[in-house]
Amino acid sequence: MIYLDNAATTGKKPPEVISAVNRTLNELSYNPGRGGHSPSVKAAEAVYSVRKKVASFFAAKGAERVIFTPSCTYSLNFVVKGIMHRGDHIIISSMEHNAVYRPVETLRKMGAEVDIAEVIFGDSEATVRSFKRLIKKNTRAIVLMHGSNVTGEIFPIEALGEVCNEKGILFVVDGAQSAGLIPIDMKKMHIDYLAVAPHKGMYAPMGTGILIANKDIPFPIIEGGTGSQSALPYLPEEYPERMESGTLNLPGIMGISAGIDFISKKGMDRMYRAEMGLVDRLYSGLKKIPNVQIYSEQPHLYKSLPVLSFNVKGKDSSRVAEYLNNKGIAVRAGLHCAALAHKRLGTVTSGTVRVSPSVFNTVADIDALLSAVKFMK
Amino acid sequence: MIYLDNAATTGKKPPEVISAVNRTLNELSYNPGRGGHSPSVKAAEAVYSVRKKVASFFAAKGAERVIFTPSCTYSLNFVVKGIMHRGDHIIISSMEHNAVYRPVETLRKMGAEVDIAEVIFGDSEATVRSFKRLIKKNTRAIVLMHGSNVTGEIFPIEALGEVCNEKGILFVVDGAQSAGLIPIDMKKMHIDYLAVAPHKGMYAPMGTGILIANKDIPFPIIEGGTGSQSALPYLPEEYPERMESGTLNLPGIMGISAGIDFISKKGMDRMYRAEMGLVDRLYSGLKKIPNVQIYSEQPHLYKSLPVLSFNVKGKDSSRVAEYLNNKGIAVRAGLHCAALAHKRLGTVTSGTVRVSPSVFNTVADIDALLSAVKFMK
Repeated sequence: MIYLDNAATTGKKPPEVISAVNRTLNELSYNPGRGGHSPSVKAAEAVYSVRKKVASFFAAKGAERVIFTPSCTYSLNFVVKGIMHRGDHIIISSMEHNAVYRPVETLRKMGAEVDIAEVIFGDSEATVRSFKRLIKKNTRAIVLMHGSNVTGEIFPIEALGEVCNEKGILFVVDGAQSAGLIPIDMKKMHIDYLAVAPHKGMYAPMGTGILIANKDIPFPIIEGGTGSQSALPYLPEEYPERMESGTLNLPGIMGISAGIDFISKKGMDRMYRAEMGLVDRLYSGLKKIPNVQIYSEQPHLYKSLPVLSFNVKGKDSSRVAEYLNNKGIAVRAGLHCAALAHKRLGTVTSGTVRVSPSVFNTVADIDALLSAVKFMK
Repeated sequence: MIYLDNAATTGKKPPEVISAVNRTLNELSYNPGRGGHSPSVKAAEAVYSVRKKVASFFAAKGAERVIFTPSCTYSLNFVVKGIMHRGDHIIISSMEHNAVYRPVETLRKMGAEVDIAEVIFGDSEATVRSFKRLIKKNTRAIVLMHGSNVTGEIFPIEALGEVCNEKGILFVVDGAQSAGLIPIDMKKMHIDYLAVAPHKGMYAPMGTGILIANKDIPFPIIEGGTGSQSALPYLPEEYPERMESGTLNLPGIMGISAGIDFISKKGMDRMYRAEMGLVDRLYSGLKKIPNVQIYSEQPHLYKSLPVLSFNVKGKDSSRVAEYLNNKGIAVRAGLHCAALAHKRLGTVTSGTVRVSPSVFNTVADIDALLSAVKFMK
């Protein structure tokens, strides 16, 4: 099977990652921060070293601001629902994933003001203007994805970060699709909260997520044992404890660590360029096939991620994906959990066929896909 | 190191569990319910088969009612915060873990009525009476742990389940410490919601949790992509999708499956009796050591779990645990994330030393512990 749905989760995990999980299960199945005995301390030290590595990878404020979560969806819920007071205003983009859209709709029902800023494809400045136009006195936060999980377009994080920084607005970035592929510098980009899906571009196991909270989270939604200040009927103020109730996914966390090592060893820029080379080839090839409509801009280094959406005119995306599946090629059809993006693209009914290579895909994979689409009846 | 903190997480995971995780990482790192291609379908089928296995293990209403969560803490937050309307009354026991106590305290702040029913040690009927006395017209739910994570005592789930069933009160059981050790039959015990920590008595990897919701959850707290009905701005009504936003922990879920197989193969009753034999030996041995105070009742089959708390008079629990740690024995000291239980026991200041064997511990482990305590100065 040629697997080209790596934007959902990277289908091939590096041997280093699998070994790290394996080693953790065999040697480090201990509950960090619980009990104070040597095995627990060893586990806590291991987790702390991963926090440091993650903090440095994303230029976070500090290791203690790195929160391990069950998935990027949880990271986004934690921040979106954790920072808004009654009557606050929040602006999200018209391309956001349901992991932002659905929580924000719940906030709206509970009395928050919500606005959706129109993303202008291929025009960063116009996109920033869309946001600026909506800023009000009570705007507490802006949420923008770093790159689209549907079209692959990279959005103007740095420029919007500056705007937020100037105006004292909290800036939340959904790095689900970008983290591990392109650099994210929270300091330079003025990102207050960064949500990450390590099981995608960072090649970690499924079941992992990261939230880096450079600023506080007044309203945590998950509460429980933190291994610290256990006599309190409420969560401690300290980070990351405040945001990490219950037992951590230690095998997953050690997998994240190995994923970062894998990227560092291979070279993030080199990996990214290789994948972009594949998407570029895909784009050019699809352009030549009549009846194919592409929803992504022409791939450009550091303007897009290795994710591309297309349709075959007159055919439902799921029919195309099914046909490709029968030819041994796995691509994702449908809405990709992003209702807003498809409203913006006009593809709510058909969905799109999404292709997303990883570093393990080859030119031959792309050519096989192109050839299959070409001969589809 | 002799590891006797298995109530925090079982320190040795069976080779079958590790293999299952390994196999999943190698062959099944695909996002179930996303995309419709064969790898995704294969992953969805694998997850569904685990749901069926879990449903049958706990006599749940159906496989679709088995919700995979990141940990038992999340399971408890999901249900406690998910079923209460404004003004509803909830009763919890005086032994509940912070994973129940802290969420319930937040509910109280938001307008819920909360009562704490006094557990009477060694007297099930009196404990049931404590709850019954507090039931009011607006009592929506009762939460009780199946067994204490501090003393190991098993509480009268079946009797309280009958009361709840008669009175139309939702019955929530925290099975964190009991699941995998003693049978839990949701039907027979009239349990509406069961929270499980598979990484403890079920020998699954850390980072796993289960919530079985035989009844609905009106207010989910985590929202995002569900791979279904993606065009909706809110979560679908269907279970388990409604409660499983974002990417699942597939390696962990397959680990749960292998954990159940491990228990079935070894025989749950046989495993339980072996562990209870160790705790019984521990109890008798500690009884003979002057200056030792035991907080657990005398171990009794199906009246207690293999968890025992003690203190050495005049010494802080952490000092005893540290001493044992230096002798190569890992036991947990402190409050065990259970503020209420220690209030009840009068050990909020000192904490307790907790010993919790797994099936991998031996008589020699217990004897080493006893000998060390005996010669402690």
